Order: sequence, then C-alpha cells, then structure tokens
Amino acid sequence: MIAEILCIGTELLMGQTLNTNAQFISRRLSALGISQYHQSVVGDNEERLEAAKVAGQALVLRPEAEAMVRERFRRLGRTMTENNLSQAMFTPDSTVLENPWGTAPGAIVPVGEGKAVIHLPGPPRELEPMFTEHVEPWLQTRSGRVLVSRYIRIFGMGEAEVDSRLSDLMEGSNPTLSPYCATGEVMLRATASAASEAEAQELLLPLMIEVRLRLGSVIYAVEEDDGGSLEKCAVAALGARGWTCATCESLTGGLIAATLVNVSGSSSVVRGGFVTYQTDTKTLLAGVPAEVIEEHNVVSAEVAMGMAQGTRERLGVDIAVSATGLAGPGGGTPERPVGTVFVGVSTAKGTYAIPLHLTGDRLRIRTLSVKHAINALRMEALKK
Amino acid sequence: MIAEILCIGTELLMGQTLNTNAQFISRRLSALGISQYHQSVVGDNEERLEAAKVAGQALVLRPEAEAMVRERFRRLGRTMTENNLSQAMFTPDSTVLENPWGTAPGAIVPVGEGKAVIHLPGPPRELEPMFTEHVEPWLQTRSGRVLVSRYIRIFGMGEAEVDSRLSDLMEGSNPTLSPYCATGEVMLRATASAASEAEAQELLLPLMIEVRLRLGSVIYAVEEDDGGSLEKCAVAALGARGWTCATCESLTGGLIAATLVNVSGSSSVVRGGFVTYQTDTKTLLAGVPAEVIEEHNVVSAEVAMGMAQGTRERLGVDIAVSATGLAGPGGGTPERPVGTVFVGVSTAKGTYAIPLHLTGDRLRIRTLSVKHAINALRMEALKK
Repeated sequence: MIAEILCIGTELLMGQTLNTNAQFISRRLSALGISQYHQSVVGDNEERLEAAKVAGQALVLRPEAEAMVRERFRRLGRTMTENNLSQAMFTPDSTVLENPWGTAPGAIVPVGEGKAVIHLPGPPRELEPMFTEHVEPWLQTRSGRVLVSRYIRIFGMGEAEVDSRLSDLMEGSNPTLSPYCATGEVMLRATASAASEAEAQELLLPLMIEVRLRLGSVIYAVEEDDGGSLEKCAVAALGARGWTCATCESLTGGLIAATLVNVSGSSSVVRGGFVTYQTDTKTLLAGVPAEVIEEHNVVSAEVAMGMAQGTRERLGVDIAVSATGLAGPGGGTPERPVGTVFVGVSTAKGTYAIPLHLTGDRLRIRTLSVKHAINALRMEALKK
Repeated sequence: MIAEILCIGTELLMGQTLNTNAQFISRRLSALGISQYHQSVVGDNEERLEAAKVAGQALVLRPEAEAMVRERFRRLGRTMTENNLSQAMFTPDSTVLENPWGTAPGAIVPVGEGKAVIHLPGPPRELEPMFTEHVEPWLQTRSGRVLVSRYIRIFGMGEAEVDSRLSDLMEGSNPTLSPYCATGEVMLRATASAASEAEAQELLLPLMIEVRLRLGSVIYAVEEDDGGSLEKCAVAALGARGWTCATCESLTGGLIAATLVNVSGSSSVVRGGFVTYQTDTKTLLAGVPAEVIEEHNVVSAEVAMGMAQGTRERLGVDIAVSATGLAGPGGGTPERPVGTVFVGVSTAKGTYAIPLHLTGDRLRIRTLSVKHAINALRMEALKK
C-alpha cells in the first residue's frame, strides 16, 4: 500500500502554521507499514469537489453527516447557516467519519481500483483522534497484516548512548526498533508485523528482553501506545504508594506542578505548592532561613533542600520536590554558569539535592529541570 | 514573483522529522511578498542533478565551493573523502553560498527565463542563517518592492466577531488585512507593498486607524513583528507601573506563574505564588476561610476572590490573581458544568472575580483560564 498526503491551507503556504499534521500522519502510516513517496501542500479549498471528480460521482447531502454538523452547532450554541451544510456533502458511497471535536465530519471516499481519498479536518485536535479511531482500523483491515508495537520510554540516558548500546538491534527489519527523541528523553518503538497478533507478539518478545537487559533501570515505561509520560508514571507511582506530594519552584515558576496536574487522577496525589520566584519568598513561603540563602547562594544544594523540606512540612505531604537554578540567558557566573540547577527532594526518611549541569536555551533548561524533579518523585515512590 | 518549496528527505516522509524548514521559508517568502501555490516533499536525493538538467548545463567542481568544504572538514577535524567533494559540484553560472554551520554549501542556480533554483542544506541551524544572510537580500533586490507589516493582537473578542466587524477591510489587496487565530486570541496582519518604506507606511496608516476605531480596547498590542504576547504586555504594563504581582492557582496548577516567568525581565515583577490544588490548601496557604468554601463551593466567585486577596496580603504584592474552576473531563454538574472558571483579581482598591464559561478540552480550558488571568493583570496595571 502506498499513500500520499495532500495538505490544504493557505496558512501553511504563508508559514503561519507549522505542518504537524503531515508528521503525525506520516508516523502512523509508517507504523502501519504504508509507504509514502510524495507529500504536497496546496492553497485552495476544492478538495471535496476534486475527489468527487476523481470518483466520478456527484456530491450529495449525507443525512448522517448533516446530523453530526447540526448536533455540533447545537452543542456549541452557535447558529448554523445553510452554507455550513456544505460540510455534510460527500459522494454517495463514502463512509462518513464523526468529528467529536469540531463541526466538519471526515470521510473515506472510494475512488476506484482499490484506491480511496480520506478527508480529515485541519485542526490537529480534530484530525488526530479521527485518524487514530477511524482511519487506522480501516487501513489495518486493508493491509492484511497485524502490527504490534511497544513504546519503551527512557529517562536519564542520552540518545547517543542508547544508540551505541542498541545499534545492532536497530538494524533489524522485523521486528524493527527505532529511536525518537524529546527534550531529555528517548523513546524507542519496537514494531513487529505478522499475520496474527499472537505471532507479532512472539516476534517482539526476545527483542524486548534484550533491550531491558542492555538498558536496565533508565527504562521508566513500556507501553502499548505512545501516550505515556514521565508525569503519568510519577503520579501512578505516588498513587500506588498512597503518597501525596507538593512542589516549591523558583526557575521553573510553577511548571512542575502544572505538568503534574495535567495527569488525570492527579488530584488525590498533588496537594499544591509554592512558586518562590523572588529570593525572599523562599524564606517567606517555604521557610528557608535567610542565612542559608546568604551563606550558600540562592542557587545551591542547601537552598534546594531547604525549599523541599520546608514545603513538605508546611503542606503536610509525604514528599516534596524543589528546583532552584539559572535558566539564563543572563545571570551566569564562572562558578555558577547558566544551566546550573539544583533539584531538592524531601521525604520523612531525609532530604537531599540533585545537582544538574544543563545546556541549551531558557525553555530547554526549564523543561529538563521539570523532568528531573518529576523523575525524582517517581524514583522515590518506587524505592523499597 | 512565485516560489515553490521542494523538501527532500525520507525522514520527512517517515514522520521522524517535523518540517519546520517549510514554515520558516514560507514565512520569509510571505514577508517578501512572494507567493506560493504549492509545496512538496519527496524522498530521493537527486535534486542537484535535476536542477542541472533543468538548467541544461553539466555539473562542475566549483573551486570556491571546494575550498569551503575542505576548510569545514579541516575545522571539524574530520577526514574528507573524494566523495564529499560532490557537495562542491554546481553548474558553472550558479552562485555558491557559504555554510558556516555545516559542510554542504548552498547555491542559487539560474535555470533560464528569469527563474532560479535555490539549494539549501537540511538542518535548520544551517538553512536559517543561509536563507536570512544570502537568499533574502538576493530575493529583495529582484522583487524591487518594500513590504511593511503590522501585527495587531486581540484578546477578548472572538474570530467571528472580528471578521464581521472588519470583513470589508479584509477584502483590500494593498494594504491587505488577514486574521490568524490562536487559543482565545486573534491576530491580524496588515501589510502594504510599495516602492519605498515611507510609501508603504503611508498606505498602512488609514487602515490601522480604522481597525482601532472598530475594535477599540480589545487590541492589546500593535507590533512590527509577530513575537508579541499577552504575558509580555502584562509584565511590561506591571513593570511600567512599578507593581509586583503574585498568583494563586487551582485548576491551572502553576501555569499562570510559569507563563509569566517565561517573559524575560519578569523577575522584578513576579514575586511568586501558591498552587492550591487540593481544596484545603486554599485555606492553609491562601487563607480562604473554610466556611466560605463550604458555603459557596470551591468553584465560586467568593473563593476566587478569597484566594486573590489572601495571596496579595500574604505575599505583600500590589496585585494578585487567582483561578478556580473545572477543567474536566469529569466533575461537572448541571449547575457548574465543565468549563466553569472564576478568575479572582485583588488590588489595594478592591477585589473582584471574573466568571468564565469556557468550552473545549482540559488543555484548552486551562490555557484560556491562564490568558484571562494574565489579561486581568494587564488591564488592572493600565487602569488610571
């Protein structure tokens, strides 16, 4: 099977929008073993008419699509004009796909000779679930192969190191093993293709065991989809232990807490915290003695520890984490260059700080600090 | 002038790489008034040969390009093979472009009839400076026009309303006026094209005045580039007034504070704040009386006001904002559906709450809550 992606939108040609849809679809097609030779972006908006032309059929108002559009407008409390009904026009033999996040339904339109044109809405939050829920199962049925993937998530080992430990495994063709990188994290996708799910899983098993052996404890999750995240694992580990947590943030300004509360189910685990951006708020809110700050500098292990311990005590939680450091671009000194960060961790068993020497811009230094703090929560919750 | 972008790379077709180059080039072309009708991505690597074919000329080893490649390998301490010299092969009349960040030079290759093929390297940190430093000046000379743009940023009016108030102005061709939407915000770009910058500015002026008249105070910034943001304006307005601020966040979990501290120069303005995710932390940290929470519900104007006022007093700031609400997906009731949010605002002059009825998913409800809170900071700082 061969696919081609055609993206339509003047905003792409003008550069106002980054084409994340093309990457999303390409990744999923690639996982399904479907090749692409060509992608295009065009500016006009005649795609439905064009597909009708290719299919040699007229567009008709499809009642199921009309119902979807009407229902959507009703729920949004917006008035629908007759013009909006053009979103419900498709060829008679096309399969209409529901769009729970927007008004425009999608469609799979047969265009002869085993070919089809698949229409998807533009906004990623509409396109992505429609693709995953409706288009992928349809493609999988037609390709006659079952693909089974596992996502191996790694924190605490760089891409180069992962590559060098697994390079021979990455050369395989079935199962395949491919690395993807996010800031500070590496994800591996292992995929096997076979006639049945059981066969595909059997192919995957020895590879998974080998990866585990070679990487060890830096693997924080092995999952069936790529929706996993460090914060999900941390919240799950804290929840499993019956622990509550709190945060005290300087350079991250609230981002550790905001990342944790993004996990659904976090409300029983995440109690709250402090944003202690200006130096004296570390004393006022978290109770770090002013002398400790003066003696050791505000960016120090001692202050990070004081922030974590004070927060744990004041919020009455099982564990608190803190972060203090220099996100840059200004403020660095030879002794404490930009990227110097201390993550503090405090539990009933004791308090310590993790010194970090991070590189990159302000955003990257913040993001990495958040991940290290969240990983510390996870590791502590898993400790025997 | 019309341009077309052709991106070459199997990593784009496989979805491993996000095509940020296409967006970068599109933006710059659009700023130069150069239109695009089509963009493509292909997987092979024969572009230089193709361009030579189009130009009807043979590829030759260009000494200046060879010197660049050799010098680059020397500096990297890598050994160069004769094969690497293929990077220095271009048609005799092409202009070779230096690549200070990589080994492969770029080139502007005339292909007849006033047309040219421009070769650029793939890595963004090589492509972007090469485009800005070498390609843009060349394109500007050839287009013979100067473009002047203004970016008008709007918060507090939906796209449909902006469209309906300005639809006649959006039909103009010089100056043009085009809307772009982000979550909860609308941006308008006004662009005029003329033989000189002064003439272009003169064309823009009446349009800018008309837009101001029709939209009024929802315009929060008019800027020469599109790097503006609500948080930048809020921090600037607070700074100009000599005010400090603090936050108290429930559903946003620290994201208001984290968004504010992303603005460089925020450290003199943003003092810190509380993350009060679990109900009783609103009492413990921000001092909201437990009876107020019990009587009015944790998602209420009274609790939002209590959070803001308590935070302002405890942190000793000029202004504090708070947010309490339901981000969903669960937890909604007929009386308080998902999307019910209260933003509290407290200054020495008084305390009030802004009730919001937001729609969308968890992320959108959080993002909009953050923007409303930050806009409230800005509006208060600007009040006489």
